[in-house]
Amino acid sequence: MMRRGNVALPPANKMKPTAIQDLYPDDFAHCFGCGRSNPTGHQLKSFAEGEEVVARFTPSAHHISVPGFVYGGLLASLADCHAMATAAAERPKEDGFAPRFVTAALKVEYLKPTPLGPELEIRGRVTERSERKAVVAVTISAAGTITVRAEAVAVRIPKSMQ
Amino acid sequence: MMRRGNVALPPANKMKPTAIQDLYPDDFAHCFGCGRSNPTGHQLKSFAEGEEVVARFTPSAHHISVPGFVYGGLLASLADCHAMATAAAERPKEDGFAPRFVTAALKVEYLKPTPLGPELEIRGRVTERSERKAVVAVTISAAGTITVRAEAVAVRIPKSMQ
Repeated sequence: MMRRGNVALPPANKMKPTAIQDLYPDDFAHCFGCGRSNPTGHQLKSFAEGEEVVARFTPSAHHISVPGFVYGGLLASLADCHAMATAAAERPKEDGFAPRFVTAALKVEYLKPTPLGPELEIRGRVTERSERKAVVAVTISAAGTITVRAEAVAVRIPKSMQ
Repeated sequence: MMRRGNVALPPANKMKPTAIQDLYPDDFAHCFGCGRSNPTGHQLKSFAEGEEVVARFTPSAHHISVPGFVYGGLLASLADCHAMATAAAERPKEDGFAPRFVTAALKVEYLKPTPLGPELEIRGRVTERSERKAVVAVTISAAGTITVRAEAVAVRIPKSMQ
């Protein structure tokens, strides 16, 4: 245990990693899906883990499609925000901030119904990359079974949105 | 004006049309995007208009992506629920209920940023149809400009979800 003044700090390897969304600049932190500054939003948090980026999210009871299953629009939303974070994760940080990507296109395949209840695991990896664009493949799993596959085209936020 | 007992009824041609989602059976009316029985959901309402199905929805201030623009996950959600209603609209009603479709696949193209503020118009039409499946093309417009194009594959709800 280290001490800085009177504050006890945990050892570095026990410090909580920072979510990619928590590195977005304050002006771009309002997103309903993943913005830390949107108190009514989903506040998705995505973390780099080796070659992949991983998030975990437990839908609420009201995130229902038909009884027992998760709403597909929520799954699309999670895939979307997670893909933008995955695109940002590989890029060098600019002034300490992660670059903000926005979605040009999103494809979602609902392979099987996603049960409502278990925590979902969302995994993303970049499959193509150019200077301003990335293609990101995403899976969503419930209790170890992949129920959704998605692909998103992420582009650096255009001037018209800044 | 007609009267039934003491209740004044408007003439038939002034009666409010019924939303397709309001014809889903009670067991399938919980959807976060469009279920009448989900008080915290979006409660999207889609109406048949000639060959097309049309819905109108005004996003809330918290449905934001970056300041000034609508969250893409909400747009995907609106396209999704509206496409399922569009698939149901053409089918003969069973026992007075609209058939319930679920989404097998969804593709969304964000053609330009969607401004946050104006009411959105969502239009759907069936482009392919088989006994248990329909492909639905959707557009979302803000202030007369199409900002999103989507395509959804709708399938009749499988037994495993009933």
